[in-house]
Amino acid sequence: MLVVAPGDQATGLKLAEELALVERQFAIELTSDLECVNQLVQHVERYRGKMLRPMLVLVSAMASSPSGQDVTAAHRVVATVVEMVHMATLVHDDILDEAQIRRKGQTVNQLRGNETAVMLGDYLISHAYHLCSSLDTTAASRVIAWATNTVCEGELLQLSNRQNWQLDEDTYYEIIRRKTASLCGVCCKLGSMLHGADDAVSESLYLYGEKLGKAFQIIDDVLDLTGDIQTVGKTLGRDVEKGKLTLPMIHALRTATAARRQDLLAILNAGQVSSEQSERIRQILQETGSLQFANAAAQKLVEEAKAELNILPDTPARACLITMADAVITRQS
Amino acid sequence: MLVVAPGDQATGLKLAEELALVERQFAIELTSDLECVNQLVQHVERYRGKMLRPMLVLVSAMASSPSGQDVTAAHRVVATVVEMVHMATLVHDDILDEAQIRRKGQTVNQLRGNETAVMLGDYLISHAYHLCSSLDTTAASRVIAWATNTVCEGELLQLSNRQNWQLDEDTYYEIIRRKTASLCGVCCKLGSMLHGADDAVSESLYLYGEKLGKAFQIIDDVLDLTGDIQTVGKTLGRDVEKGKLTLPMIHALRTATAARRQDLLAILNAGQVSSEQSERIRQILQETGSLQFANAAAQKLVEEAKAELNILPDTPARACLITMADAVITRQS
Repeated sequence: MLVVAPGDQATGLKLAEELALVERQFAIELTSDLECVNQLVQHVERYRGKMLRPMLVLVSAMASSPSGQDVTAAHRVVATVVEMVHMATLVHDDILDEAQIRRKGQTVNQLRGNETAVMLGDYLISHAYHLCSSLDTTAASRVIAWATNTVCEGELLQLSNRQNWQLDEDTYYEIIRRKTASLCGVCCKLGSMLHGADDAVSESLYLYGEKLGKAFQIIDDVLDLTGDIQTVGKTLGRDVEKGKLTLPMIHALRTATAARRQDLLAILNAGQVSSEQSERIRQILQETGSLQFANAAAQKLVEEAKAELNILPDTPARACLITMADAVITRQS
Repeated sequence: MLVVAPGDQATGLKLAEELALVERQFAIELTSDLECVNQLVQHVERYRGKMLRPMLVLVSAMASSPSGQDVTAAHRVVATVVEMVHMATLVHDDILDEAQIRRKGQTVNQLRGNETAVMLGDYLISHAYHLCSSLDTTAASRVIAWATNTVCEGELLQLSNRQNWQLDEDTYYEIIRRKTASLCGVCCKLGSMLHGADDAVSESLYLYGEKLGKAFQIIDDVLDLTGDIQTVGKTLGRDVEKGKLTLPMIHALRTATAARRQDLLAILNAGQVSSEQSERIRQILQETGSLQFANAAAQKLVEEAKAELNILPDTPARACLITMADAVITRQS
């Protein structure tokens, strides 16, 4: 869970109120006249945890408003939309990863089959666009659809690099920029854009969100290799099993001794990770310093993200964005 | 292939020109800077066959315009959008059906795995919304997203009724209204809406499209039971194998003798259809007159669809809509 200590109590209360409105809108928008659909939606609502993306929209809105705390109805709509988009990607990702556990509960694909998971993801994404097109203009829809285009490209690029043990850092960063960071960037950008802020502010906020998103994904990838399933609450070790190289593994394959490299490749080629093999991976990653390497890379991105906020006035909301960036690194789940 | 003989040569030429523009826009919009994405898109472009939905937009536009032949840039955008939406549903449907053949070529899920098919479908739907939000207003986006919401509900309703051998006609019609007919209805409605036509005209065109869509799906379901794979060009018999009851089977189960009903249930429960069992199904459907029953239901819907067109002036474009409705019944693929 991403714990955020807002800059001051008023900002914290405001944010909590706004998030409650987003949750309500989320539930209302997804309600169907079909009971079979509502049951599925209730199941996915359990996945809602960090609410990172709605928070990025809302706090960016506050931080870029003249008063330092303004949020409009359009921001709430967009905050709800990005959470739906995110939820859809989780449901479809779980199919791709053949994951069984998400937020300590069974995944939809595990519980009801891949087919239902495909359609439920489609239902979520469709409702996201439906809600977004209730706004006065197409501007937000266009930006969000650009992000979802980019997310899909990132996923397809990652799929096309499965079992590619030569994957380099540049391609890894390109994958995570598209599949994770672009949506985070758009969340922050829309926060200011919908206030009619200067393009320079929106652009800086985009970069803040993009860098935060990259750091977030790097930590996610580290946790997949070293996390505790009870704490993280989702199926782990899937990246190795699905042939997806992430930053620590790329670093380890590049820097390990020939013998250790062969050990890693043997585990990767087998495509199944027992607890013994998982322990072996951790040992090698320790020896090569690959976890510290990945954590340092994430830390650097967080510092760069925070530097983008210099364009904003010093408000409690801006302090909150700084805290959120720091929290990406310290999270355990 | 749906063969359309337009009312006159000018209308036919105009339609062919407009469809060529739609095809070009389709290809341009889906082009990525990633080669791995472009390869996949090229593969799906093979699926484009009937172009039924773009034609519904374009011909409805012509038929409801003052000159009887006007098509605007917005119509072309929407025609491209609905084809992308349709293509996305084909790609995801093939996962649901575990289909191997589509338009006489391998399906994406067969060729590249379910994971790529999930993401490619998402890529298509995302680009559809991206393109649609390039229009001046959110009106078309809102209507199309309503349709995709409804399509997903239809698919989920169908999934929740798998292996339900008590499925009744009303629920079957509710499934096909949502999963197929709603999008066809919206195509026609948008054709007139984007010309600023009267609500009554748009509503009649919606009903024309909805009824045509239902008839289309009934014939699709008949072909899945009785068609020839060489002619139809896609995997057949999947409905029975996936436990989906369609109109002919619902009728047969209701009207067959107890012994024949047991035969059908045994095949349905086995969930695998050999050529011998396929033949047995056809025999029983012949005996119960269930194919004629389904064809008659489709024919009735086509007549009702055509009656909705009485609100329009008698133009070659309206004649073309009539021909398109009739072609739904006579098609062999």
